[in-house]
Amino acid sequence: MSFRLCLIGAGRIGRIHAGNIAAHPDASLHCVVDADPKASADLANRAGAKVCDLDRALADDKVDAVVIASSTDTHLPLIKACAAAGKPVFCEKPLDLDSGNARRGIELARESSILLFVGFNRRYDPSFRKLRQELKAGAIGAIEVLTITSRDPSPPPLDYVKRSGGLFRDMMIHDFDMARWLLGAEPTAVFATGSCLVDDTIGRAGDVDTAAVILETATGAVCQITNSRRCSYGYDQRIEAFGAKGMLRADNETATRVEVANANGFLKEPALPFFLERYRSAYRLEMDDFLRALGGEAHDLAGGEDGLRALLLADAAERSRRAQVRVPTGG
Amino acid sequence: MSFRLCLIGAGRIGRIHAGNIAAHPDASLHCVVDADPKASADLANRAGAKVCDLDRALADDKVDAVVIASSTDTHLPLIKACAAAGKPVFCEKPLDLDSGNARRGIELARESSILLFVGFNRRYDPSFRKLRQELKAGAIGAIEVLTITSRDPSPPPLDYVKRSGGLFRDMMIHDFDMARWLLGAEPTAVFATGSCLVDDTIGRAGDVDTAAVILETATGAVCQITNSRRCSYGYDQRIEAFGAKGMLRADNETATRVEVANANGFLKEPALPFFLERYRSAYRLEMDDFLRALGGEAHDLAGGEDGLRALLLADAAERSRRAQVRVPTGG
Amino acid sequence: MSFRLCLIGAGRIGRIHAGNIAAHPDASLHCVVDADPKASADLANRAGAKVCDLDRALADDKVDAVVIASSTDTHLPLIKACAAAGKPVFCEKPLDLDSGNARRGIELARESSILLFVGFNRRYDPSFRKLRQELKAGAIGAIEVLTITSRDPSPPPLDYVKRSGGLFRDMMIHDFDMARWLLGAEPTAVFATGSCLVDDTIGRAGDVDTAAVILETATGAVCQITNSRRCSYGYDQRIEAFGAKGMLRADNETATRVEVANANGFLKEPALPFFLERYRSAYRLEMDDFLRALGGEAHDLAGGEDGLRALLLADAAERSRRAQVRVPTGG
Amino acid sequence: MSFRLCLIGAGRIGRIHAGNIAAHPDASLHCVVDADPKASADLANRAGAKVCDLDRALADDKVDAVVIASSTDTHLPLIKACAAAGKPVFCEKPLDLDSGNARRGIELARESSILLFVGFNRRYDPSFRKLRQELKAGAIGAIEVLTITSRDPSPPPLDYVKRSGGLFRDMMIHDFDMARWLLGAEPTAVFATGSCLVDDTIGRAGDVDTAAVILETATGAVCQITNSRRCSYGYDQRIEAFGAKGMLRADNETATRVEVANANGFLKEPALPFFLERYRSAYRLEMDDFLRALGGEAHDLAGGEDGLRALLLADAAERSRRAQVRVPTGG
Repeated sequence: MSFRLCLIGAGRIGRIHAGNIAAHPDASLHCVVDADPKASADLANRAGAKVCDLDRALADDKVDAVVIASSTDTHLPLIKACAAAGKPVFCEKPLDLDSGNARRGIELARESSILLFVGFNRRYDPSFRKLRQELKAGAIGAIEVLTITSRDPSPPPLDYVKRSGGLFRDMMIHDFDMARWLLGAEPTAVFATGSCLVDDTIGRAGDVDTAAVILETATGAVCQITNSRRCSYGYDQRIEAFGAKGMLRADNETATRVEVANANGFLKEPALPFFLERYRSAYRLEMDDFLRALGGEAHDLAGGEDGLRALLLADAAERSRRAQVRVPTGG
Repeated sequence: MSFRLCLIGAGRIGRIHAGNIAAHPDASLHCVVDADPKASADLANRAGAKVCDLDRALADDKVDAVVIASSTDTHLPLIKACAAAGKPVFCEKPLDLDSGNARRGIELARESSILLFVGFNRRYDPSFRKLRQELKAGAIGAIEVLTITSRDPSPPPLDYVKRSGGLFRDMMIHDFDMARWLLGAEPTAVFATGSCLVDDTIGRAGDVDTAAVILETATGAVCQITNSRRCSYGYDQRIEAFGAKGMLRADNETATRVEVANANGFLKEPALPFFLERYRSAYRLEMDDFLRALGGEAHDLAGGEDGLRALLLADAAERSRRAQVRVPTGG
Repeated sequence: MSFRLCLIGAGRIGRIHAGNIAAHPDASLHCVVDADPKASADLANRAGAKVCDLDRALADDKVDAVVIASSTDTHLPLIKACAAAGKPVFCEKPLDLDSGNARRGIELARESSILLFVGFNRRYDPSFRKLRQELKAGAIGAIEVLTITSRDPSPPPLDYVKRSGGLFRDMMIHDFDMARWLLGAEPTAVFATGSCLVDDTIGRAGDVDTAAVILETATGAVCQITNSRRCSYGYDQRIEAFGAKGMLRADNETATRVEVANANGFLKEPALPFFLERYRSAYRLEMDDFLRALGGEAHDLAGGEDGLRALLLADAAERSRRAQVRVPTGG
Repeated sequence: MSFRLCLIGAGRIGRIHAGNIAAHPDASLHCVVDADPKASADLANRAGAKVCDLDRALADDKVDAVVIASSTDTHLPLIKACAAAGKPVFCEKPLDLDSGNARRGIELARESSILLFVGFNRRYDPSFRKLRQELKAGAIGAIEVLTITSRDPSPPPLDYVKRSGGLFRDMMIHDFDMARWLLGAEPTAVFATGSCLVDDTIGRAGDVDTAAVILETATGAVCQITNSRRCSYGYDQRIEAFGAKGMLRADNETATRVEVANANGFLKEPALPFFLERYRSAYRLEMDDFLRALGGEAHDLAGGEDGLRALLLADAAERSRRAQVRVPTGG
């Protein structure tokens, strides 16, 4: 079975998905929708697809599903349109910056009985998957302490920061999803603290660039998360899970395994530079899973509800940071 | 210059100090004081010292300084007696489980102008010292996020737990001292959470065996600490410091550097089993520093005030955990 | 510019090349030649190519170049045919098991002025390339001691062993090429020793499955190579280069960076299972380089002469092992 | 039982032994013999021993055993004197630079029935011991390939080089002993090659500073050894043992476990600087074993015969290098 997909959004993430769709044996990129005619034409050209406008794409019987990779503010209207057209949706995270809107998107999908997935790419990172598989196989017993470290190489442009919903909704939302995915339980309370240590203008915009969070759960398992918007040694993406029987760690990836030794010591390379490099396989495996889901097979994609819950944790973290209190989440 | 020391307490820690004193070129163990005549005789014998009672020891002009390694409840009266006798004191942590008592001990020492040091052995661990030295040399810029992991191999006997003042005062107090020592700043607020996941009886005694803490500071630097009373892979003692220019990590020590590879993969040994093995060098270097302090030289020993401040952080953490609120420390 | 290639040989290596050609933006697989009609049809089908017989393929003006991935005994006749047809050739290693034949192939190519490359895939392994790049950048000064470790997961079938030319010509030939490529100098003498420790039938066939070799060079730099036909912890492919200023090491690749700790210690995964996994990128980069070479650009492909010299070293090693003497190579 | 030892030689190695004897609960340093009155007085003073001349020391009933740590040319006459006096001997390696003399020393000891041990300190390195223990426990099956890497930080003074007997007898002799100790078999042939790449004056003195050796054994197991007289990243002392079931590796020791990450990558410290640091524990454990041997207990000390066999391998290596031939050893 081969699926024909419509891609909305010809930006950086859109291009990754287009490449993975084009290379997949069970899929083809049917059309590309983007307000920028040059970007959509370039991308369509490269992937053997056509340029299309939204209405025609959704009306096209040949389109089996839609991948939404446009800016966050377009997600809800696009989900609404896809729901109306009865097209299954893969939507980049977050569903929306507002949890009410996110909830509305989920309801729309449910009412129209369309599939709605949210793109949490890290669930497909081979190291994180292996860690979870070992966890499920009982390698360390139940998680007692989960530690997630996530540091971007450098802060995004201020414009982006202002539209981003803040560090917790934009960046740590991935870690909240990881926490839920690995803990296998809903956090019951959040405590968050944050600072502006990297870029003053981020602070002046009311946001933070450095943060630490504790999540509590009903079982007593605890999760620590730390984020920074700047990291000198690459894109730092590590997870450590501790339990009664041991510890699992997923370390950073590097481009090669070369080490140089001299009087300064033994030097290994920095972590891969950023998400395009680190999560290259993850994006590919994620699209593969979406295609499996379209075919009705077992999959591990985050659904709309997962997207909402991660967003609610981000909201709670933001409230906790601002009010300097622990925030129960009713999780 | 050679110093003659009186050791009070012939238990496990006392024996370590006795060995280090006996082996030091600038010191000798003059006498051992312990309520248990056999323990004190054995230890004195092995170290070429004599057994003594407290009053005679403190009245003895040959005693240049006193090392207090007896149980915590004896620390305050012993400091009082040493202050009265004008003997400098090295006191094992904590000064007292009660911050009022700890403060009283500090005042007594100040009034009598005796030196009063508190034994935070981890300040002398070669890896932690190297990490701090690199920090001070500017290797990573100012600390932005400090992450301390501390896991004991197995929980202490319930009797000990009950007298210990709880995990924060008994175990995490070391990490609070590490945090202050490395941050070079006083934490301004504490948030703590804890669970009982290792041993039910600890929970029934009102304590926790698993905990996570966030410390905030005035500069915006954040410290994460996690403790567990049980660890399958040895005594887990790690520190990670993250700053604008990079990251410093101190990993666990192992007995050897042997690795075995087979179809399961590449296996390195567990961490050293417990503090006697991991902090063997630290105890030796700590005693060496105490002798330098006695000689009026520069040293890095924690003073009474350091002991008090770590205890106040532990108190704040305990309050935070019980009340589920962030506790400002006025730090 | 886009090149249309003819692939000869639809076996394991052929399939790898077909995939890389099909996925390359500057190339397409025009046709597949293989005596087995089903294998060639399957492969052609998957890569959007057609099945062809040799004569028609070489007569086809649309074929820009030929990739020879058939069995070793066919290499020389195929090179001869390609030379006659004026088609550039990428030939899997070795050119031939007999150095006279290899030399004849090189001459045929020279006389017809066709390009002739030999597929030494390891030159494209990202870690080995990085090591060489650091070497050339002077990271360790000139190589003084080069140590190459190469261990296959398990011995090939006895039939293969018998046709293989022996361990030195079949397996260590890769390491001889690595040695030449990294040393930047021709070995002047070889000493080889070998044993049959893995599989008795290999010994009875007159071959060895375990070997160690020393290469000498005119500068005094030395190379140690060790091979085994069996390795429990994956496909072991490591290089260490030592010089006046330091050491460079390329370690094995693993599928993920997950580590599990328990009472046995800290376990990392085995090396990737075999060459298909370890050299996946290498095969892709090698084909990319062949296409660059076809376009007249700078490349790093091994030429026929490199293939011959590696074979002569293998011959010398075989003689050394059998006669138990150091063999000068006139290198 | 406590043993009183006489130490001959108050140089660098003598001081290490003196310290270990003084600190041992079952031994005391009775007297120190050295031609240099200041060196012997200093050392005796520090260890609570007396200065003595050789004749009186050997005539002294209080002396239970003799530790010979003087220059190599004195070893044979001192063994002779000790044998005459009936004193057990621990002699630093090598027994003598001449195998005939070494053999004579062994005979003298045998005729007088005195114990004669040779100080191969590396047998006591905790990592190498652990590796051997794992080997004996069957962790990898029988050794098939043993790889020993040994690199000094910098070449010794030329004077020393000239008296040293050459790299094989002075430096690689340790590795020959390691090979015998780990292989559990006598090498049957040696092939050696060497170069002068570090220091021209060493070459002009007829010696090499860089060498690679292959040892063959009757079982087919092979040993590779490489030595260099200069190493930029510390004292490089590594062993790798490969067998049917896996691989054992002993990596270098470092002073701490601190790692610093920045844009250059992840930097760990160099290896410990030289043998005094790397083999500190080994010297202590070696002396402990000598005392056990004196007490008639099981021990792992190298005997005179081991010293001779390592020397014979060094002789064979030197012959091999000079004649450029494989040298059977009759092992």
